[in-house]
Amino acid sequence: MTRYFLGIDGGGTSCRAALADETGRIIGRGKSGASNILTDPDTALRHIEEASRRAFEEAGLVPHLASASSVLGLAGNNVGDAVSYVSARLPFRQSDIVSDGVIALQGAIGDEDGAIGIVGTGTVYIARHQSKLHSIAGWGFQVSDLGSGARLGQMALQESLLAHDTIRPLTDLTRAILAEFGNNPEAVVDFARLAKPGDFGRFTPKVFEHAARGDEAALRLLRQGAACIDEALDAVDRLTRNTGRLCLLGGLGPLYPPYLAERHRGRISAPLADALTGAVALAIQTFGRKETLTA
Amino acid sequence: MTRYFLGIDGGGTSCRAALADETGRIIGRGKSGASNILTDPDTALRHIEEASRRAFEEAGLVPHLASASSVLGLAGNNVGDAVSYVSARLPFRQSDIVSDGVIALQGAIGDEDGAIGIVGTGTVYIARHQSKLHSIAGWGFQVSDLGSGARLGQMALQESLLAHDTIRPLTDLTRAILAEFGNNPEAVVDFARLAKPGDFGRFTPKVFEHAARGDEAALRLLRQGAACIDEALDAVDRLTRNTGRLCLLGGLGPLYPPYLAERHRGRISAPLADALTGAVALAIQTFGRKETLTA
Repeated sequence: MTRYFLGIDGGGTSCRAALADETGRIIGRGKSGASNILTDPDTALRHIEEASRRAFEEAGLVPHLASASSVLGLAGNNVGDAVSYVSARLPFRQSDIVSDGVIALQGAIGDEDGAIGIVGTGTVYIARHQSKLHSIAGWGFQVSDLGSGARLGQMALQESLLAHDTIRPLTDLTRAILAEFGNNPEAVVDFARLAKPGDFGRFTPKVFEHAARGDEAALRLLRQGAACIDEALDAVDRLTRNTGRLCLLGGLGPLYPPYLAERHRGRISAPLADALTGAVALAIQTFGRKETLTA
Repeated sequence: MTRYFLGIDGGGTSCRAALADETGRIIGRGKSGASNILTDPDTALRHIEEASRRAFEEAGLVPHLASASSVLGLAGNNVGDAVSYVSARLPFRQSDIVSDGVIALQGAIGDEDGAIGIVGTGTVYIARHQSKLHSIAGWGFQVSDLGSGARLGQMALQESLLAHDTIRPLTDLTRAILAEFGNNPEAVVDFARLAKPGDFGRFTPKVFEHAARGDEAALRLLRQGAACIDEALDAVDRLTRNTGRLCLLGGLGPLYPPYLAERHRGRISAPLADALTGAVALAIQTFGRKETLTA
């Protein structure tokens, strides 16, 4: 029987699968819906299977999931119960569930040492040094995720209230945000009380836009956010002794470098490949050699 | 019929009443339980009545609430529905519900111009300039209350995770906080996810204790908190043109001055009286003269 390798990248909005043959060449891809194993494991399972079938079909093959060895990078993988539930029900020959960060690292830096920062709604840093993985930060919105989209958006709302209260000068950014709430600070407070991290993050594009036009408040927020990222990258550099590739991923990854310290800006490079490619590589690494040895 | 004046200071943990005679002299005091008109208006009403009766009794009088004109300083007074509900059911001859901040201002600075900052679990500033009241900040935990006990506590937890992640050096403060969570960052995150402002505030005494011993992390947090308070006090000073008394109240009011800028430290003085005394003064001011004129 032919052996196939599946890489799967599953998150809160979509699930992507890539199929590789025994040589490691990607021969088909598939996409489906949300696959958050924490909030809805059964839907996640259905979408994982759906994306995988489509990858087989795109390769011109009759889907035969039991012939595939897979590595799945899934958000929510840090909760043991969800992982056990999903693991026991996966349709593959063999499989391994890792974090979405681990497949992103593999995709971005390949097999060498190095590190990534993923700066999106949240913020997490993953480094590989002498084959050992280290995760830094990424503890969520309330007490971590400094510099993230959610925190920047929250700070933009806070800055708007400070301007409303004449504690800081009004700028175009804070004027625009207050206007969005009908210039009613109580509307800002009502919004913030129920806001999820993603809701705060909705204001972050505005911060970058206004900073590009020299807005003082926007620049202050980005300098604070960038200082937090610089500090975390310093910790990453201490771990990796400044060796290997360093990539900044996530929605804000390409936007932050102009605001970062020169020592990091100069070191950041483009990722080698995306997270899905990383998942395929890990599937081959994890299950390819083992099967050869036991064949 | 003899006219009496009642001042009432009601909050989330207790309700206090003070009774004054026509000359304005306080002749009795009473205390009862929680009187948060937002979360439980009926209990609040019961406790307002109970504290008032006790004030009559302490003065050696048979309680006769309908003979009293009262000013109530109540937390939650900014929500109109709760105020209407409670107003319509108060047992007094006449009454006025104002914010807890307004009676604190009256107590602290009397009838002159001036300002107070109330720095407790939250933070709010109230100024009186040429008889006009101004409220600054105090928009709650999520997007305001900078320098408050809740924000300091939250930042102490955040600082502990930064230290755990080797982003900042471990200090006695962050070591002590991590130890409280069994040195398990996930326990910190679990706590923070469900924590209310008061729960974060529980860590704030630790910050002041460690800062007094020179702890670097604690000092950094207090310097940040104090800088926020300095900025707000600058806004207050612009409003009041640096005139009148300036008092720092609330649980952290007496603790912050050593960390504030010299320009404010030198200007802060002790309050003339407490919030309850302020409520009595406002009751006499609001209802005393009016009755004389219409008598």
